[in-house]
Amino acid sequence: MAKLPPGISAESLATALKKFADIVGPDWVFHSDEDVALYRDAYSPLWNQPGELVASAAVAPASVEQVQAIVCVANEYKLPLYPISTGKNLGYGGSAPNMSGSIVVDLKRMNRVLEVDDKRHYALVEPGVAYYDLYRHIQDHKLRVWMDCPDPGWGSVMGNALDHGVGSTGPAFRNHWAAHCGLEVVLPNGELMRTGMGAMPGAKNWQDHQFGFGPSVDGLFAQGNFGIVTKMGIWLMPAPEAFASGTITVKKHDDLIPLIEVVNYLENLGITNGLPDFGFGLGPMFIGGPAQPSGAPTTPKPDGSVDIAALDRYADEKQLPFWTVTLHFYGPAKVIAAQWEYAKSRFAQIPGSKAIDGAAFNLPLTSENLEKSRTTRQLFGEPDLSIFSLAARNPFTPTPGSGLMWFAPLVPRTGEAVLEAQKTLWRIGEEVGMACPRWLLPKSYFQRSFVVIVPVVITRDPAVDGKHVQAYRDFVRIAGEHGYGEYRAHALIQDNVMDAYSFGDHALRRFCERLKEGVDPNGIMAPGRSGIWSKRYPRSQA
Amino acid sequence: MAKLPPGISAESLATALKKFADIVGPDWVFHSDEDVALYRDAYSPLWNQPGELVASAAVAPASVEQVQAIVCVANEYKLPLYPISTGKNLGYGGSAPNMSGSIVVDLKRMNRVLEVDDKRHYALVEPGVAYYDLYRHIQDHKLRVWMDCPDPGWGSVMGNALDHGVGSTGPAFRNHWAAHCGLEVVLPNGELMRTGMGAMPGAKNWQDHQFGFGPSVDGLFAQGNFGIVTKMGIWLMPAPEAFASGTITVKKHDDLIPLIEVVNYLENLGITNGLPDFGFGLGPMFIGGPAQPSGAPTTPKPDGSVDIAALDRYADEKQLPFWTVTLHFYGPAKVIAAQWEYAKSRFAQIPGSKAIDGAAFNLPLTSENLEKSRTTRQLFGEPDLSIFSLAARNPFTPTPGSGLMWFAPLVPRTGEAVLEAQKTLWRIGEEVGMACPRWLLPKSYFQRSFVVIVPVVITRDPAVDGKHVQAYRDFVRIAGEHGYGEYRAHALIQDNVMDAYSFGDHALRRFCERLKEGVDPNGIMAPGRSGIWSKRYPRSQA
Repeated sequence: MAKLPPGISAESLATALKKFADIVGPDWVFHSDEDVALYRDAYSPLWNQPGELVASAAVAPASVEQVQAIVCVANEYKLPLYPISTGKNLGYGGSAPNMSGSIVVDLKRMNRVLEVDDKRHYALVEPGVAYYDLYRHIQDHKLRVWMDCPDPGWGSVMGNALDHGVGSTGPAFRNHWAAHCGLEVVLPNGELMRTGMGAMPGAKNWQDHQFGFGPSVDGLFAQGNFGIVTKMGIWLMPAPEAFASGTITVKKHDDLIPLIEVVNYLENLGITNGLPDFGFGLGPMFIGGPAQPSGAPTTPKPDGSVDIAALDRYADEKQLPFWTVTLHFYGPAKVIAAQWEYAKSRFAQIPGSKAIDGAAFNLPLTSENLEKSRTTRQLFGEPDLSIFSLAARNPFTPTPGSGLMWFAPLVPRTGEAVLEAQKTLWRIGEEVGMACPRWLLPKSYFQRSFVVIVPVVITRDPAVDGKHVQAYRDFVRIAGEHGYGEYRAHALIQDNVMDAYSFGDHALRRFCERLKEGVDPNGIMAPGRSGIWSKRYPRSQA
Repeated sequence: MAKLPPGISAESLATALKKFADIVGPDWVFHSDEDVALYRDAYSPLWNQPGELVASAAVAPASVEQVQAIVCVANEYKLPLYPISTGKNLGYGGSAPNMSGSIVVDLKRMNRVLEVDDKRHYALVEPGVAYYDLYRHIQDHKLRVWMDCPDPGWGSVMGNALDHGVGSTGPAFRNHWAAHCGLEVVLPNGELMRTGMGAMPGAKNWQDHQFGFGPSVDGLFAQGNFGIVTKMGIWLMPAPEAFASGTITVKKHDDLIPLIEVVNYLENLGITNGLPDFGFGLGPMFIGGPAQPSGAPTTPKPDGSVDIAALDRYADEKQLPFWTVTLHFYGPAKVIAAQWEYAKSRFAQIPGSKAIDGAAFNLPLTSENLEKSRTTRQLFGEPDLSIFSLAARNPFTPTPGSGLMWFAPLVPRTGEAVLEAQKTLWRIGEEVGMACPRWLLPKSYFQRSFVVIVPVVITRDPAVDGKHVQAYRDFVRIAGEHGYGEYRAHALIQDNVMDAYSFGDHALRRFCERLKEGVDPNGIMAPGRSGIWSKRYPRSQA
C-alpha cells in the first residue's frame, strides 16, 4: 500500500530510512505495509483507490534533536516529510500526507506537558500531548484552569491549533490558533527557532506575549509547511466560579437578522462569553430526513428560495420558534446573572421573542449539573468522545457511515448573510450532487465569523465516495465563486480550496510559495499542505 | 541634508524621481532639502549629527496603482523604499527611514475611511486615516462603535497597528495589531495581495475572519519589511452603555504579588474589561525628582535592592498605600456594578487592602463625566493630544525637552517579575548611565503581558543625546541578557533590539531574512526595519 515519494528510488529511500533508524532507533522507523497502513486516513473517501493519499514510511522521533537530525537527512536525500502531532485529524485527512509517498514524522512520543501556570493561565506543550493528557495534568495538580477542547478530545492540543481547530468555551480560548502564544520550530534546514519572546534566551514571558519584536512568523506554521513545530504555548481560561445558560426563541424567518445583531453586540462587548448555540425550531435541519415533521413547508424551490410567509404561518400555527439561540455564561454567579438579565432585555426588543432561563450552577462541574445543563462536557473544558456517534446509525443516517469529511465554509456574521448562505449553499449542493441541509446553522467558534458545517458521509462504496469527492471539489469551486471560503479542509481537497482564494491571480498562494522557496529550497516540508507547493514538488504532483 | 541611497548615484536617483513624477505628478515627489527635511525625525537624538537617519527623497502616491508603479520603478533602479502611513511615530523614529538614503513613500494622501460597520463592529481604512479622521467619521455617521486610540490621536490607525501600537479600552481592542483583520498589500515585486478572506474575490467577510485558509502571512507586515500595506481592517468595540471605575490600594511592598494575581484572574476571565492602571503610592515614580517626599526611604542601594521593611513602615506611618490599581469597566450599568462588587470581594482577601469606588455613569461621555472620572479621553475611544505635555516643562522635567525616545521592555505578568524587573532595570540604568525610575509600573496594554516604559528625554545637546543613544544601546543589550526584550523600538535602536532576540544564534532573524530574500530579492522594501536586512542592503549598511 505504501507509495514511494515522487522521483525517489526504493534504494534511496531504504538508505535514508537506515539513517533515520540510526537517529531514533530501529523500533521507531516504520516501513512495512502493515505499519505504514496505520498512517492511512481511516476516513479516506478514496480508500483502496489509486488516488488515496498514503505515506511511504514513518519515523517517530523522541526529541527535538532527533527531529533536527531527521530534517537534515531529508535534505540530504531530498525526501518529503509530513509531520503530524498525533494524526487524529479525522474528517480532514487523518494522518495521511498531502502528497503520497511523503514520510510521516510522527511526534506522538514527544508528549510532555512542560508547564501549566494557573496564575498567568497558560500551558506549554509538546506535539504529542492530547487533550486528555493535558486535562489529566490539570486535574492531577489541582490547577485552577480550564483547557478548551474540540469535540473529540483525543487529538493533539498543538495539532488542533496548528490546523485552525476550534472548541466550545470563551471567545479568547475556543479559537485555538488565536490562543497560541509562542512556538518552537525545527526549520526546513534543521535549525531550531523560537518565536515571540522565545527568541530571547532567558525571557520568562514566552507564553505571555504573542508577538515579540519584528515580523511575526507564527502564522506560517499553522495550516502551513514551513517547519516542524516542537513546542507551543497556549492560553488557558481561569477556572470560573459559576455557569449559566439561557435560550431565546424568535417567531419568524427574518427574525434571525435582529437575533444575530443582538448576539454580536453581546459577544463583541463580552457580555456573553460562551459559545452561542443557534438552533432551527421548525424541525430537524436535515431537510428530508425521516424526522422531518410531515406537512412542514420547509422544502425549498429549485432556486433555493422558500415560501417565507408560509413558513412563518406554519411556525405560528404549530407554536414553534423559527430560530433559537442558547447563550452560555462563565464567571461569578452574580455577574453572569446580571449578564443574562441584560441579554434578555435586549432580545425583548424583538417582537414575539421569548426568553427561557437555562441551568445555572456553581462550578466545578458535577454529573448532576452536566445533566441539568443538557449540554456537553466540552462546554466545561472537559474532553469527550461522544461526537463519534455522529456517523453511527441514527435517525438521519439509517446506514452507519465509515466516517465523514467536513465541508466548512465561512459566512459573514449577519442574519442577512446567513439566510443568503443557506439558500445559496443548498442550491449549489443540488447542482453538484452533494446533499446540503437547507437550514445550515451558523456556528460561532471563531470570535467574529460564522462557519457552517456540512458533513459528507463516507460509505466505502468507491462509486459513491468517488462521486462525493468530485461533488465536494465542485462545491468548493462554485461556493468560492459566491465568496464562501473554507476555514479548513480535507487534505484531498486543499488544492481546490486554495484555488478559490484567488485574489490577484492567486497572489497569496504565489507569495507563500516564494517565501517557502526562500527557506525550504529542497521542498522537503509537507509538500502540498494547504495547496502550497514548491519547485521541487510542484502542484502537478498533486 | 538629504543623503543618497548606498550605491546609488545622484543621476540614477534623479532619473528614478522623474519616473516617480510621471506616476504621481511632479507636485508629489519631494527632493529639495527643504521638502525632505519634513521627513526628518523631529525627535531624533542625533539631530544634525552624521548618524541621523534621513531620506534621499519622498514620493506621495494617491492610489494603490500608483504604489504598485512606484515599487516597479524601485525594482528597476534598485532603490530602497521606506513606506510610512502618516509618519507620526514620534518616540520611535518619526518618518525617518531605518537606512539613510531610503525614499520615503508617504501614504498620507490615501486617507479614505472605506467602511465602518456598527453591527459587526469593524472599520476598513487606508494608510493615511488618522484617529481623528476615523473618530469624525464615526461621529458624523452616528455609528454605535468606539475606536481604540493611542495617547496621541493624530497618528495613523494603520501605521500604529503595523508598529504594534497600543491603546486604552477593552483587551480585544487596545492591542491594535491583534485587533486587525485583513490586509491589502503591494508586494515587493509590485503585485497586489489581499490576506485572510480578502484572498477570496467576492468574499463579504474580509473583516470578520482573521486567518482565511493556509499559512497566515499578516504577521510579516507588522514591524516588518515585506510589502506596503494599502488597506487594513480593524475590529472596533461596540459602544457600551455605561462606565465605572474603582481603585484598590494595598499596604505593603510584597502586596503587589497578590494584587496582580487577582487582576490577572479578573482580566483573563473578562470580569474587568478596561485597562488596569497600576500606581505607586509612596510618591512620584521618578526617584529623585523634586516632588519626591523628603525623608522617604525609597532610594535604592547600589545593587537596586531597597529596605523593604523600612519602606513598609514608612507607608504605614504616613498611611500611604504602597501600590494601587484602578480598574475600568465598560458595559451595561448593572453588569459592570456586579463586576466591580465581585472584584472588591476578591481583593478583600489581601490583608490591609482597601477599595474605593470611582466614577460610574452612563455613556456617551459628557465633559462633566470626563471630569468626574479624572482620566483621559482615550479611555472613551476619543483621540487626544495632551500627551505632548510630557516633555514640556513640568515638576519632573524642569528644562523642557525636545522630544523623547521610549525604552519599552516586556515583563512577565506576575508581581514577583515586576518587582525583579524594577530592581534589575534600575541597576542597569545606573550601570549604563541612563536614568531609569526605580519604581517602574507595569502597563497592561497587551492582553497578557506587561510592558514598562522608560522615557529618554531628547535635549538637542549633541553630547548629551549622543551619550543617551549609546546608553540606550547598552541598556538594550544588558537588559536582553536578563531576558527583557522590547516590544517596539526607535528606528536607531532596532538593530540592537533584534540582536538581543538571539535564540539559536539569531535563528529568527536569519529565518526572516531568508523569507525576505525569497520575495524581495532586490531588497527594496524598508532595509533594516526591525533589524531585518538583505543581501543587497546588508546589516553592515546600518
